[in-house]
Amino acid sequence: MSEKQLHLTAFMRPVSLHTGAWRYPGSYPDANFNLTHLKSFIQKLEAAKFDAFFMADHLAVLNMPVEALKRSHTVTSFEPFTLLSALSQVTEKIGLAATASTTYDEPYHIARRFASLDHLSGGRAAWNIVTTGNPESSKNFGKDEHLQHGDRYKRAREFYDVVTGLWDSFADDAFIRDRESGIFFDPEKLHVLNHKGDDLAVRGPLNIARPVQGWPVIVQAGQSEPGRQLAAETAEAVFCSPRDLAAAKALYADIKGRAEAAGRKPEHLKILPAALIIVGDSLEDAKAKRLAVDALVHYDSAIASLSVALGADASGFDPDGPLPTDLPETNASHTSRAGVLKLAADEGLTVRQLAQRYGGYSGLAFVGTPESIAAEMETWLREGGSDGFTVVFPFLPQGLDDVTQRLVPELQRRGIFRKDYTGSTLREHLGLPRPTNRFFE
Amino acid sequence: MSEKQLHLTAFMRPVSLHTGAWRYPGSYPDANFNLTHLKSFIQKLEAAKFDAFFMADHLAVLNMPVEALKRSHTVTSFEPFTLLSALSQVTEKIGLAATASTTYDEPYHIARRFASLDHLSGGRAAWNIVTTGNPESSKNFGKDEHLQHGDRYKRAREFYDVVTGLWDSFADDAFIRDRESGIFFDPEKLHVLNHKGDDLAVRGPLNIARPVQGWPVIVQAGQSEPGRQLAAETAEAVFCSPRDLAAAKALYADIKGRAEAAGRKPEHLKILPAALIIVGDSLEDAKAKRLAVDALVHYDSAIASLSVALGADASGFDPDGPLPTDLPETNASHTSRAGVLKLAADEGLTVRQLAQRYGGYSGLAFVGTPESIAAEMETWLREGGSDGFTVVFPFLPQGLDDVTQRLVPELQRRGIFRKDYTGSTLREHLGLPRPTNRFFE
Repeated sequence: MSEKQLHLTAFMRPVSLHTGAWRYPGSYPDANFNLTHLKSFIQKLEAAKFDAFFMADHLAVLNMPVEALKRSHTVTSFEPFTLLSALSQVTEKIGLAATASTTYDEPYHIARRFASLDHLSGGRAAWNIVTTGNPESSKNFGKDEHLQHGDRYKRAREFYDVVTGLWDSFADDAFIRDRESGIFFDPEKLHVLNHKGDDLAVRGPLNIARPVQGWPVIVQAGQSEPGRQLAAETAEAVFCSPRDLAAAKALYADIKGRAEAAGRKPEHLKILPAALIIVGDSLEDAKAKRLAVDALVHYDSAIASLSVALGADASGFDPDGPLPTDLPETNASHTSRAGVLKLAADEGLTVRQLAQRYGGYSGLAFVGTPESIAAEMETWLREGGSDGFTVVFPFLPQGLDDVTQRLVPELQRRGIFRKDYTGSTLREHLGLPRPTNRFFE
Repeated sequence: MSEKQLHLTAFMRPVSLHTGAWRYPGSYPDANFNLTHLKSFIQKLEAAKFDAFFMADHLAVLNMPVEALKRSHTVTSFEPFTLLSALSQVTEKIGLAATASTTYDEPYHIARRFASLDHLSGGRAAWNIVTTGNPESSKNFGKDEHLQHGDRYKRAREFYDVVTGLWDSFADDAFIRDRESGIFFDPEKLHVLNHKGDDLAVRGPLNIARPVQGWPVIVQAGQSEPGRQLAAETAEAVFCSPRDLAAAKALYADIKGRAEAAGRKPEHLKILPAALIIVGDSLEDAKAKRLAVDALVHYDSAIASLSVALGADASGFDPDGPLPTDLPETNASHTSRAGVLKLAADEGLTVRQLAQRYGGYSGLAFVGTPESIAAEMETWLREGGSDGFTVVFPFLPQGLDDVTQRLVPELQRRGIFRKDYTGSTLREHLGLPRPTNRFFE
C-alpha cells in the first residue's frame, strides 16, 4: 500500500445536496427523514470503510420563495445529535461528524453533547464548527440582526477555546471508583476552567469525563479569510469547495502553510473538498445520469439560480436554446459568470440544462467510470489538491451504492484507500494524534 | 383487570439517587456512565412494561465540599438527548423522558431536539420541563446571578408556549413528497409562529415535521406554588416528592383541582411521586438491605445532611448513640426536625444511621416484600395518592431486578399493572390524548 491514503467522508445532511435527487427514479423521496433508510446508508458506508458520516446543519427552514420551498426535501430533517447518537448504536467504526454553530448556542451545552456522543460511540465524534450568518436563523433565536462576519469568527475562536478547555475538565485517569474507600474520583484531577473572555464567561468544570478521543475531531468549513485562519489554527479536517484542481492546490497550500505558521504539523490537518460523484458504465452514461437528475430540478427555481450565477436575469432567455452571446454587463462576480460561460461551451448545454445544473448541484463533480474517477482522485491526492473528499451523492440509494460498490473497490485496487479499518476511533481513521490534556500531562 | 392502573417510570439519572449505591456489593460502580449497563437496565425495564425511563439533569457539577464531591458517582453522566437517542435504538416501546431546562437554553433548540427524539423513537419522547436555580449552573452560562424563582417560572411558561407552537409548525399531513409533480410539501400546511413575548422572540417555523405524538409528553417536577400552577396548566405527568400518603393525597387533589380549574380533564395529568423501592424476602430483610446501603454513605457528608435536616450541628453527637434529647432551639423548619425525631423513634436509629439515611436517600420509600409493597402501592392508587410512581432504585442491578422480577409480577397479579404494552407511543402507555395542532384542525 502506498504512503499517502485518501480519506472519505459522506455528506449526509441532506443525504443529497442535489435538489432533484428525491425525484430520481428508484430514489426514496423521504430518505432525508427516514431512519430506516439512514441506518442502511451508514451501514453501507461503514462496510465500504468510509472515515465518517457528515451532518451539515441549519437552524431554520431556509429562506426561499414558496414556489421553490415547497419543492425542497430539506425542510424536515433530524437534529444532528439525536440522529448521530441513534446511528452510533447500529455502527461500530465509522466516524460521526455533527455540525454545531457557535453563534446561537452555549459552549457548555456543545462541549457536553460532543463529549457524550464521543463516549456513546467509543470515540467516533467530530465537531464541524460553523458560525451562523443567515437572518432566518437569527430570528429563531430572538435576534433581529445577525452578528457581523468578523464578530462571528471572533466568538467562534473563543468558543473553541472554551469547549476544548471544558473537555479537559477531568484528567483521563481521574476516575478511581474504589468501592472499598468510597473514593469515586481524584479531586486533584479535576480542573475548573474559570474562563472570562470578551464574548463568553464559563466557569466549568464540565459534568462528563474527558472524551474517548481526548477531544472529538475538529472540522472547519470556512473558505473566507477568517475561516481559513480559524481552520489553520484549530481544524483537523477541512470541508471546502474548490471548483477545480488548480483552485484546490492553491487552497491546500494556503491552509497547510497557515497551519505550519501557527506551529502545527500540516499532516495533522486533512483537506477534504466536497465532490459530487456520479458513476456510470461509460463517461457518456455518467453524463446522461447527471442530465437526468438535473432535469428533475424545477425550472422556476433553476432559472433563479442561473440568474444569480450570471449576474443577469435569465428568465427571458429561450430555455431550449443556447445561452445568448449578448449578455448585459454585470456588477456581480466575473469569475462566476466566466464559469457559466465555460460550462455552457464545454458541455454544449441549453439554457434550461445550465439552469438546472445551477439549481441542482454546481460544485466540484467527478463524473465518469469507476476507473476514471479513481484516477482523477489519485491525481488530486498526488498533486497536493486534497487529502481525500467529502462525497456528495447525486441520488440514493443508487448513487451511494455506485460509490461504495464500484468506486471504492477501484480506489482500494490502486492502494489509495483502506480495505479495512485499522483503528477504532475517528482520530485513528484520519491519522490524527490524541490531544494531550492542557491541564494535566 | 380493574379500572385504574398504575403507571411506572424509572428514575435513571443518576441510576440510583442513593449516594451509597455505587459501593453496594454486586453493584456496578460505573453504572451511571456505562452504556452497556444502561442498555441492559432499559431493556429489563421494557421487559417489565415500564411506562418510561426518566432522565433528570444538571447543568453543572453540583456544588459540594470536595470531601463529599470526590465520593459522588454523579460527577460524570451522559447528556440526556444523546443517551436517550442511543437507547431508542435498543428498545421498542418504553418511553424516553429527558429533562431540559428553560433557563439557559433556546426554545428552537429544545423543540427541535425533542421532535427529533420523538421521530427517532417512534413517538416515545417526553419533556420534563424544569427551571434552573443553582448558581453553579448560571456560572456555566455567562451569568453571575441566576434568575429569581418567579422570573424563571414566567420564562418557563412562555418557553412552553413557544416550544409547543414550534411543534405545530407543520400540519400532520403537510408532506406529500410527490415525485411526479415535484411537490415535497403543501405550503398551506406550514405555519410561521412569529412569537414575540416578554422573554422570548422566535419566528419559526421549526425545521422538522410535527412529532409522532403531536407533542412529546409534558412532564413537570415542581412542588412550589408556581410549579404546581405550571404543572396544572401544562403537565401531563407530574414528578413529585410527598413524604407520605396524607401529603400525597393533598398534593394530588390540589394539582388535579387546579388542572380542572384551568379547563383540563384531571385524568389527562398523571401524578407520579418518586419512591425508593427496596424489596426483601421479609420486612426485616428489606430493612437490613436499607441499613446496609445507608452504611455505605460517608460519615462526613452524612452528618452534614443530618445537621441540615435537624437545623442543628450534629457533628458533636456520639455517632453510635441515640439522638440527644436536648437539641438546641432552631430557626430552621420544624417539620423537618419533627420528621427526623419521628424516624429516630420509629426505627430506633443511632446518630450514624440517621445521618446516613439523610445523606443517602431520605424521601418516600417502600421497604418490604413484593406483596407488602404491592399492597401499599394499590392503597395509594385507590385512595387518590397517586396514579403511579417514579421508581428510585437503591442499588443496581439487584435493586432493579428485584422490582422488575419480583414486585411487577405481584402488581400484575393484582390487576393494577399491564402485562403487556397495548400501544406503541408513550402517550398510549399513559392514556393521554394526542394534542390537536393549534394551527390546523
